[in-house]
Amino acid sequence: MKNIQAFVFDAYGTLFDVHSVVEACNRAFPGRGEALSQLWRAKQVEYTWLKTLMGQYEDFWQVTEAALTFACKALNLQAPIDPRPLLMTAYLRLDLYPEVLEALTSLAPFPLSILSNGSPRMLKAVVQNAGLKERFVQIISVEEVKAYKPSPGVYELAPQKLSIPKEAICFVSSNSFDVIGAKAFGFQVCWVNRTNAPLDELGFLPDAQVSRLTELGRLVED
Amino acid sequence: MKNIQAFVFDAYGTLFDVHSVVEACNRAFPGRGEALSQLWRAKQVEYTWLKTLMGQYEDFWQVTEAALTFACKALNLQAPIDPRPLLMTAYLRLDLYPEVLEALTSLAPFPLSILSNGSPRMLKAVVQNAGLKERFVQIISVEEVKAYKPSPGVYELAPQKLSIPKEAICFVSSNSFDVIGAKAFGFQVCWVNRTNAPLDELGFLPDAQVSRLTELGRLVED
Repeated sequence: MKNIQAFVFDAYGTLFDVHSVVEACNRAFPGRGEALSQLWRAKQVEYTWLKTLMGQYEDFWQVTEAALTFACKALNLQAPIDPRPLLMTAYLRLDLYPEVLEALTSLAPFPLSILSNGSPRMLKAVVQNAGLKERFVQIISVEEVKAYKPSPGVYELAPQKLSIPKEAICFVSSNSFDVIGAKAFGFQVCWVNRTNAPLDELGFLPDAQVSRLTELGRLVED
Repeated sequence: MKNIQAFVFDAYGTLFDVHSVVEACNRAFPGRGEALSQLWRAKQVEYTWLKTLMGQYEDFWQVTEAALTFACKALNLQAPIDPRPLLMTAYLRLDLYPEVLEALTSLAPFPLSILSNGSPRMLKAVVQNAGLKERFVQIISVEEVKAYKPSPGVYELAPQKLSIPKEAICFVSSNSFDVIGAKAFGFQVCWVNRTNAPLDELGFLPDAQVSRLTELGRLVED
């Protein structure tokens, strides 16, 4: 990667492990935590796409809650006391992936930002609870454009807010659709592919691929 | 449902059983046909959403082929001779659901149409191979607007082409996202829910729900 002036990170699934809600899900529905977490996340992402396509934006808290409601219904999970309020709060305290702090420290000479589907309130909470508040120059939410990734208008927020051309921004995401959307928009893009998954066949390839965020440093040293 | 003047059907999953490709998939990859068919379809739909969101429309044949390529990679399916060309042709000869002919016959006093993600060539082939050519007054493809469901612009094609107000059209689909998108647009909508699945939580409900297409007739008799 050449002439990188800034790093912009996706949040959910890239810095924060969305499946760290499994424990809370297991407390609510013993033995079903893994299944619930998987379907909850899949529907959360799907609903962001569908709401954007329909022109029916709602914020990420509402989308996340709707996805949880659907997942509980689809898996036929019922509890005497509605566990959704408690499960939703788990989203404000997601675990960091283990290498995040080391990776951010090594990249600290660059301005670091987040560009996320999350609502400003959710992002503020999850970043603060992880002790990352001082690490980022900008925490950018899609909320301003009322559309979700991979809409080009979302990615446009980063060069606008940072006053750095998109070609000089390294966008970092673990989510295949986000990697492809960011590349279609025109960032330099690094895919954090922790599970050695195949890339979606959508006609765009990332500029680089790593298996851990700590490998990012060497991309800009080259 | 009141004052219905026409029925407009989704094609794939509603009239045509997309999983009738399982047999061909099993011939290509013995014992993996079901898994391949499921992932192929899931990715096909996902790619229509993502390509529309990115403003990177490609026709449904290309999307279907890309989804098949991804599904084979993700399931680690390899064959000495690339089976994709043969599997793709299965999409031109999908089986009808067993009740389709009876249902269309009973609704024949109404003008019947298709509004589908399929490319004109794919729709022509699948309709002709199923012997349905004379049943429809219009076979409408999203191709004209270069976007996929549930974009409102897609649904707009039906009232335009039929010269019937959207409120007087009964749109029929098995696909939850399509049902919701059609309702958000403003059709009267019937969900063909063959598997008794929960509806996606996207803020819109169909006007009616049936488990088989043959139940449609009674909706307009009421």
